[in-house]
Amino acid sequence: MSWGEIAQARLADIAACSLASSGVTRLPFTDQHREAIAQISDWMVAAGLSPTMDAAGTLVGHKPGQGPALLIGSHQDTVRDAGRYDGVMGVALACLAVEKLSAEGYAPPFPIDVLAFADEEGVRFPTALLGPRALAGTVDPAIFALSDADGTTLGEALRSFDGDPDQIATLARDPAGVRGYLEVHIEQGPVLENSNLALGVVTGICGIERNRVTFKGETGHAGTVPMQGRADALVAASEFIALVHDAAPGDVRATVGAVRVHPGVVNAIPDQVDLTLEIRDISDATRTEFARAAEGIGLDIAARRGCDFLIARTYVQPAVPCNPDLMVALSQAVTKVQGQSIDLPSGATHDASAMADLCPVGMLFLRCKGGISHRPDEHASAEDMGLAIDALAEVLRTLD
Amino acid sequence: MSWGEIAQARLADIAACSLASSGVTRLPFTDQHREAIAQISDWMVAAGLSPTMDAAGTLVGHKPGQGPALLIGSHQDTVRDAGRYDGVMGVALACLAVEKLSAEGYAPPFPIDVLAFADEEGVRFPTALLGPRALAGTVDPAIFALSDADGTTLGEALRSFDGDPDQIATLARDPAGVRGYLEVHIEQGPVLENSNLALGVVTGICGIERNRVTFKGETGHAGTVPMQGRADALVAASEFIALVHDAAPGDVRATVGAVRVHPGVVNAIPDQVDLTLEIRDISDATRTEFARAAEGIGLDIAARRGCDFLIARTYVQPAVPCNPDLMVALSQAVTKVQGQSIDLPSGATHDASAMADLCPVGMLFLRCKGGISHRPDEHASAEDMGLAIDALAEVLRTLD
Repeated sequence: MSWGEIAQARLADIAACSLASSGVTRLPFTDQHREAIAQISDWMVAAGLSPTMDAAGTLVGHKPGQGPALLIGSHQDTVRDAGRYDGVMGVALACLAVEKLSAEGYAPPFPIDVLAFADEEGVRFPTALLGPRALAGTVDPAIFALSDADGTTLGEALRSFDGDPDQIATLARDPAGVRGYLEVHIEQGPVLENSNLALGVVTGICGIERNRVTFKGETGHAGTVPMQGRADALVAASEFIALVHDAAPGDVRATVGAVRVHPGVVNAIPDQVDLTLEIRDISDATRTEFARAAEGIGLDIAARRGCDFLIARTYVQPAVPCNPDLMVALSQAVTKVQGQSIDLPSGATHDASAMADLCPVGMLFLRCKGGISHRPDEHASAEDMGLAIDALAEVLRTLD
Repeated sequence: MSWGEIAQARLADIAACSLASSGVTRLPFTDQHREAIAQISDWMVAAGLSPTMDAAGTLVGHKPGQGPALLIGSHQDTVRDAGRYDGVMGVALACLAVEKLSAEGYAPPFPIDVLAFADEEGVRFPTALLGPRALAGTVDPAIFALSDADGTTLGEALRSFDGDPDQIATLARDPAGVRGYLEVHIEQGPVLENSNLALGVVTGICGIERNRVTFKGETGHAGTVPMQGRADALVAASEFIALVHDAAPGDVRATVGAVRVHPGVVNAIPDQVDLTLEIRDISDATRTEFARAAEGIGLDIAARRGCDFLIARTYVQPAVPCNPDLMVALSQAVTKVQGQSIDLPSGATHDASAMADLCPVGMLFLRCKGGISHRPDEHASAEDMGLAIDALAEVLRTLD
C-alpha cells in the first residue's frame, strides 16, 4: 500500500469510532473519542512517537530532539453526520509523514509533537478549541461551567476523560520552546478542485464579523395599498441581499444566511425584516471596509424605498495570518511534490487559529471532492493524501 | 347632530359590543354579535325598516315596495383588535341614508333590504361570506362542519344563534326580484386620502392569485466557498422579490409576504428559498399576464445565478367587476356631493364579491385615515360619513 492508501485505510477504520448516524459523529470526551484515541495512539507509536494525553484531552505524540519543538496537528472530533476527513485526516497525515521519514531512515533533529485535539467543532459544548488554547495559555476558566445538552459541564466531561480543568494553566507552552505549528486540513471549498491541484498553501484564516441588519417599513393590506406608496421592508432587504452579494470584492465572502420576515403572511406587506450578514476576509481592513460599503448600500436602499435601516455588529473575530517563513517552506514543498503551488485563504476557523496565539502557524489545504465537507459524502483521495504526506515530510526535512 | 355625527356616535356605541381587547373584536354568532344586532335593529327601526334575522344570521331590515328590491349592506363582524369602521359602518350608513330620505319625506318606490351580514372576515371559522352566499344560493353545505378554535362547528354556532343550516338553501333570492346590491366600505388603502377625496367609486373587486415560488441552489460554508462559484438561492430569490415588486404595472399589486430560507443559519449559503407571491388586479387577463412575466423574471434570474426556479399557483379567485350602470349612478351621486368623483379598484374582498353571483353590485369607498384598517386606530371622519350618506341617499333617489 502507498502512504496515501494507508491514510485512506486508517481513516476508514477510525470512522467506525462514531455514534450511530448517517455519517461520522464523534463528539469530545465520549466513548467514541476514547476509541479514536486508541487508534491514534497506534498511529503515533508506528511513527516512533510516544503518546500521552494532556489535561485538556489532547493526545500528544512526542518525539524528542534538540531546540524548539515543531507541533503538527488537527482535531479528532466531528460535527454530527460528518465525513471521514475533516480534522482527523490532519492527525493521520502528520503521523504518516513522520513515519515515512523514519522509514526513509531520517529523523528531524528538533522535537516533534503530533497533536490530536479533542474539540474543534464546538458541537457538544458552546465553546471550542480547548486543546490549542490550553497550549497557548488563552483558556478562560469560565468555559468549564458550560453545559452540553444533557446538563454535563465541560469540566465534568473533561474529568471523566482523565483530564483536569485545574491543570489547564500548566499546559501553556513557552513560546521560546516552539518553532511553529503546522496543520493539514481538507479545504472545505472548491478552489483546489477548480484549480486541478491536490494541495495549496493557506495564507491565513479569515477574520469574521457578523452583523444583524434590520429594514423597517410599513405594513398594509397586500390588496388595498398601491405599489407606488409602499414601504415594503422585504423589497428593501431583498435589494440589499442581492447588491451586497454582487458587490463583494476580491476574496471577501459576504453571506446572508438567515432572514426573518414580519408579519410573514401571504397577504400583508412586510414591515420588518431582520437578517444576518456575515463577512469574512483575510484582511481585517478589507473586511471592515466592505462592512462600511454594505452599510452605505443599505442606507441608500432604505432612503429610496422609504424604509429605516439598521446594522449592528454582533460578533467579530480578527484574521489570523499564516507565518511567511512557514508559507515559503510549505510552498516549496508543495511545488516539489505537485509541480506548482497556489495560495488560498481559509474561510473557516481551525485549530491553527488558536495556536497562532502561541507560535507561527502554517497550513496546507487538501482538495476535497466538490468542496463538500461536514457531510457523509465528504471525500479526499488516497493519491492527494499521499502528496500531502510527501509535502509534509519535505517540510520536516527543510526545517532541519 | 349632522347625519355624519349620528353615524360617528352610533359606531362609537356599537364598538362596545366587543370582547375585551385593545380594539374591537366581534366574532360571528357570539354574545357580542347578539348585542350588536340589538343596536342595528334600533337603527333599522329608526329608518322605517322592519328587522328580522334570516337563517344565515343576517339581520335584514326590510322596507316594502314595488318591483325588484335594492339590497344595501355590509358585515357586522371584525377581525381581532379591529377598528370601528370596517364592515359595520356600511350598515350604519345604509340605515341613515334611508332614514335621511324618510326625514326628507321621500321613500323610494322599490323594496329595500338593508343587510347586516354575520361573518365577512373569516376569523372565527375557516370560511366566510355565509350571509351573501346564502342569498346568492352558493353555500357549500360542507362548511357547516368546519370548527372554530374551541371545536364548535359553524352549524352548531349558527343554531345556537337561532339560525338554521338546513334552511340556508331557502334563502336564495330569485335574481329577477333583485335590482342590485350596494355597499359602502372604508377604502383600507391610501388612494382617496392621497386624492383629498372623501368618496370614490369602486370599479370592481380584484382577482387574486397566490403562487408558491421556490429557488433551489447549493448550500456550502459561508467562509470556504468563494462568491464566484456560489448558487445562493437567497440571492436569486432576493433579486426576484425586488424585480417583481418594481415590475408590477398599472394597478397590479404584487406582494411577497412570506419567505422561508433553508438552512437559515448565519454561516451557511442558503440552498432553498420558498416564498409566496400574491398578485391582484381588477383584470384577470392583466393578472395572469403579470404572473407569466414574473415567471420569466424568475427563470432568467435562476439561469444567471445557477439556481432552479419553480412557480406553482396555489389559489385563484377571479375578479368581480362592478355593474357599469350602478357605477354611473354612484359616480353621479358622488360628483353631486363632493364636486368630483374618482374610480378605484378594491384590492380586498367584500360581501359584494359574493353578492355578485346574485345581482349587479356597486360599491362606494370612503376615505380612512392613513389608509389604515384592521387596527384600533382605524378612522373615518363624521364629515366623510355624512357625504357618504348624502351620496347613498342621492343614488336611492336616482334609481327611482
